[in-house]
Amino acid sequence: MEKRNLYLNNIPAEEAVEIYRKALKESVDVSYERIPVTEALNRVTRSAVYAKYCSPLYNSAAMDGVAVRADITNHASEREAVELVIGENCRLIDTGDPVRPPYNAVIMAEDLVETTDPDRFRILASAAPWQHVRPIGEDIVAGEMILPGGHRIRPVDIGVLLAGGILQVEVIRRPQVAVIPTGSEIIEPGREPREGEIIESNSRMFENLVTEQEGLPHRLPPVPDDYGLLRQTVLKAVREHDMVLVNAGSSAGTEDYTVHVLRELGQVIVHGVAVKPGKPVILAVVEGKPVIGLPGYPVSAFIGFQNFVIPVMDLYLDRDRQPAGCAEAVLSRRLISSLKYKEYVRVKMGKVDEKLIAAPLARGAGAAMSLVRADGFCIIGQNREGVEAGETVEVELFRSLSEIEHTVMVIGSHDLLLDVLADLMPSLHPHMFLSSTHVGSMGGLMALRRGEAHVAPVHLLDQKTGIYNISYLEELFHEPVLLVKGVKRIQGLIVKKGNPRNIKEIRDLPGLRYVNRQRGAGTRILFDYLLSENGLVPEEIEGYTYEASTHMAVAALVSSDGADAGMGIQSAAKAMDLDFLPIGAEEYDFALYPKSLELPHIQAFLDVLQSREFRMKLEELGGYDTSGIGEQILIHGLC
Amino acid sequence: MEKRNLYLNNIPAEEAVEIYRKALKESVDVSYERIPVTEALNRVTRSAVYAKYCSPLYNSAAMDGVAVRADITNHASEREAVELVIGENCRLIDTGDPVRPPYNAVIMAEDLVETTDPDRFRILASAAPWQHVRPIGEDIVAGEMILPGGHRIRPVDIGVLLAGGILQVEVIRRPQVAVIPTGSEIIEPGREPREGEIIESNSRMFENLVTEQEGLPHRLPPVPDDYGLLRQTVLKAVREHDMVLVNAGSSAGTEDYTVHVLRELGQVIVHGVAVKPGKPVILAVVEGKPVIGLPGYPVSAFIGFQNFVIPVMDLYLDRDRQPAGCAEAVLSRRLISSLKYKEYVRVKMGKVDEKLIAAPLARGAGAAMSLVRADGFCIIGQNREGVEAGETVEVELFRSLSEIEHTVMVIGSHDLLLDVLADLMPSLHPHMFLSSTHVGSMGGLMALRRGEAHVAPVHLLDQKTGIYNISYLEELFHEPVLLVKGVKRIQGLIVKKGNPRNIKEIRDLPGLRYVNRQRGAGTRILFDYLLSENGLVPEEIEGYTYEASTHMAVAALVSSDGADAGMGIQSAAKAMDLDFLPIGAEEYDFALYPKSLELPHIQAFLDVLQSREFRMKLEELGGYDTSGIGEQILIHGLC
Repeated sequence: MEKRNLYLNNIPAEEAVEIYRKALKESVDVSYERIPVTEALNRVTRSAVYAKYCSPLYNSAAMDGVAVRADITNHASEREAVELVIGENCRLIDTGDPVRPPYNAVIMAEDLVETTDPDRFRILASAAPWQHVRPIGEDIVAGEMILPGGHRIRPVDIGVLLAGGILQVEVIRRPQVAVIPTGSEIIEPGREPREGEIIESNSRMFENLVTEQEGLPHRLPPVPDDYGLLRQTVLKAVREHDMVLVNAGSSAGTEDYTVHVLRELGQVIVHGVAVKPGKPVILAVVEGKPVIGLPGYPVSAFIGFQNFVIPVMDLYLDRDRQPAGCAEAVLSRRLISSLKYKEYVRVKMGKVDEKLIAAPLARGAGAAMSLVRADGFCIIGQNREGVEAGETVEVELFRSLSEIEHTVMVIGSHDLLLDVLADLMPSLHPHMFLSSTHVGSMGGLMALRRGEAHVAPVHLLDQKTGIYNISYLEELFHEPVLLVKGVKRIQGLIVKKGNPRNIKEIRDLPGLRYVNRQRGAGTRILFDYLLSENGLVPEEIEGYTYEASTHMAVAALVSSDGADAGMGIQSAAKAMDLDFLPIGAEEYDFALYPKSLELPHIQAFLDVLQSREFRMKLEELGGYDTSGIGEQILIHGLC
Repeated sequence: MEKRNLYLNNIPAEEAVEIYRKALKESVDVSYERIPVTEALNRVTRSAVYAKYCSPLYNSAAMDGVAVRADITNHASEREAVELVIGENCRLIDTGDPVRPPYNAVIMAEDLVETTDPDRFRILASAAPWQHVRPIGEDIVAGEMILPGGHRIRPVDIGVLLAGGILQVEVIRRPQVAVIPTGSEIIEPGREPREGEIIESNSRMFENLVTEQEGLPHRLPPVPDDYGLLRQTVLKAVREHDMVLVNAGSSAGTEDYTVHVLRELGQVIVHGVAVKPGKPVILAVVEGKPVIGLPGYPVSAFIGFQNFVIPVMDLYLDRDRQPAGCAEAVLSRRLISSLKYKEYVRVKMGKVDEKLIAAPLARGAGAAMSLVRADGFCIIGQNREGVEAGETVEVELFRSLSEIEHTVMVIGSHDLLLDVLADLMPSLHPHMFLSSTHVGSMGGLMALRRGEAHVAPVHLLDQKTGIYNISYLEELFHEPVLLVKGVKRIQGLIVKKGNPRNIKEIRDLPGLRYVNRQRGAGTRILFDYLLSENGLVPEEIEGYTYEASTHMAVAALVSSDGADAGMGIQSAAKAMDLDFLPIGAEEYDFALYPKSLELPHIQAFLDVLQSREFRMKLEELGGYDTSGIGEQILIHGLC
């Protein structure tokens, strides 16, 4: 009687997977390919993708109406209408049209009072500069990160990538999985089976399971029970694919052949696992590639696939298997909503102090990037006037909860280095993420105090001492708070290429068009300080009230001729190919509570901050001094 | 100044969807196509699919070993070994091989004691008839329903369909969705945009959203702002597709064109909805087909798609949008599990008396149909010896909870009409389902009492009175219980085609091979009654202890020459092309608690039972008398 093969192992499933994945670690790796963005649905990015163009690409009308120079409307009122004449002091404009100099504001069609002359209108209120104008880069700024590495591409991402000028993207290659049915008694579907014959169907189940798991299946024709033929087929399949599944059929002795063939060709790591049904599984490595022998009974085959094939496919796909869903979260800020609408608010999510926090993002319909950045939708019913801060809301998640829970929530001053940190986090510390929201230094400290952020990046100049950040923390906090030193960065004036207005210092700004940063931004505080040092007042600066919310937005406005100068950092000027006049170095640090140091993702954040990879990226960007990065100063430590 | 279009409506999203779907109801319908099973992943079946072949197709070995006649082993014991000689009184057999007469049992290789002669073994214990034999049709019985209509095809279903001899399947056709980007200022990705130009990206987002939603997208080239051209493009698109999306771009006045074009070509049902962002949506009908105008801002476009395009695609796809997930359920029966294994138990789920119940299904690895029938997996950890009945377990769901909650749980005696009911339920009453488990009449009544079933189908003969079912209910229940009259069905002997053994009555059975039904089955009770009426005792019937659990399994065994005769219903004999000797009509009724009448799915069940469609299907099957169907008899009503 022929020798029967006994199962050597009875290893628990989890242990078997671990041993097997360890055995494959040396030889199995993620690989990448470049594909058109239009074909990238559900593929996973290799590395961060940065925008090539701004969106909008120019200052554009946000409404249908007329474009005007805001100053000519200054005195318009109910009692004293100002007359607008198309082609003379205004021009017709539709949503999306460029707003070009000398025009700098849009008046909505609804606010125009018609006259008997179709080219003449009257207005009864003044227009603020830049009203109803979407500034260049409002949605996407050239050079800005659109998607981080390791991101699964959704339909909305495809739209934003194309809008940002990206046509191709590098993504994780899908593993090619050969499926080999075996057994002399199996026949292909379509022929009437005779007694002793079995219709081969498992391989078709495997094909479709592989497809569902985002692999590329390749089913081979059934191999009869012939040792030499099986050996040859397996070897060929191993060489032409990333992994191989050998299915025993329900056949006689085939499984014995399989394990012997695999022992001859490579190494059998596990044979037999403590799973029922599904015990007779073979986990082998041949020429560095995984070859998995699955039992013939269909239920065992299915369970074997779930337990062992998917975790190996995960190695090729660098995949974390977490479904999204819904979650309840505490709203970080009050949301006012109209009773007229059911409103979809995009939110950023994070877990701070054991509470899941939902922080509303930009609400404009044009902000496609808000969809890309959002962790979910918070839907406010039409019958509600809004939601108070601190109320619990239901959020439809776009990312898995586990990912959200391992995300460092950074809220505060903007710097490009935050994009770099967000990109490096998951590659240096798998399953750890960073998300940042840009509200300026003071806004960030407020969010930190409210328990909405883990980390607040700050660059606040004490105008009395000339020392950065410390006195602000001392004053705003009454409990211990940590200042982790970040970078010294060169602040200066961003001006057009070649500096056509010949700007040399702050004193040259009156008479030119300036673009400012929003209230609370460190850059704005520095600018105020410099104005007063130079004996100037805000009223002398045209555009002092024209606020952009990021360095890149300032650079984009200067680049598009929306302004002659703005204050910002060197990397933003460099990214937009503009000139930069250094004014001085400022200190961009990170505030956080000492208790946060216990969190693994905060530890990962501090580690990435001091990593060689991060310093190298900053050197590439230019304009940073990283000496002393990561040093910690405890404030109110004795309270 | 050109005329601007004002939004006419500010309808709540839900209301807008309802109005629009109502307007489309006349002209939009589900259509079907026939495709190869191998390409049917994720497609939805039109109607029930019935198996062509049995699986296994013949009585087959469930183990490697030798095939023997059980009777020659009768006296084997530790003290008195029986010798087996290959080729003389046994033959070598491997798992899956046919077990042919005269052999009727398999002895495992492990139980064979080797001798010096490789062709001789000794055995130290007797073999029971049919031990380690998988009877024909154990997994799938020819003529049995494999999938109900409206079922979404999974990889495991593809395997079972092919194993059951099905090569093609009729499924719901996917809607073809044209996507038309519009606007003179938009350019295709790949060209450097100039001021005033916008890269067209929304249509690419739509394409991928349509794909994600299982439609077939067809993106058309951008249409400039030209009334006539837009009109012509929309009309052509409507004629060549199932639905059309017109995207405004961020363009000037385009939207005005769109609504005017749609008013000219058809009917604008809704223009403007109370959703923010996403107000300017147009819901129109042109030549009976849905044409949806979506706003140009990407966020509005995305939200418009979610709110309005998906519900219309649902009309074409006849789709209920419910994700599966996990659920906690009460285990209906004790499960013993080995500490040696992590065990995957397939369960049927249902909600009875506000409790979610998980009832374990067949545990064999060969039972592919148990995967198809299962509503989920209950995973028992390797460190557990089992789970008690009534304990709460976590179930990984294959079906949505909402579907499970609207399912009539039928447990009891088997009849093919249950498959017919299961197939008719969701087509006559959308979102109402029926699932049946076959444990015989008494088993069903026990399940009803334990609160595991809604309905127990019974055909239990009172041997004293000759009346069916009533006395059993009176005795087993002590509270009011309802008997809903079902069908009278002809029971008889199922014999081979042409009746080669010339069987005429029960008295002819001694000396022939009979296949019995399991204990508690109504057919078995009838058989026992007939035996005693004919002055016979069970010991005179060969195969009295050989139990099959369904009528079809009995028919399959007779068909495969596993037995000469078995008792069963005419439809089973007809399905397997066998002869049938009528013995008498029996009453197959349904027991349920009166309180269940409040459930909508029980109402649906009673309605289907009395429907014309159901009666017509039974006539096709033959062997049923449906007079009086649906009449209710209340038992213990006065308690």
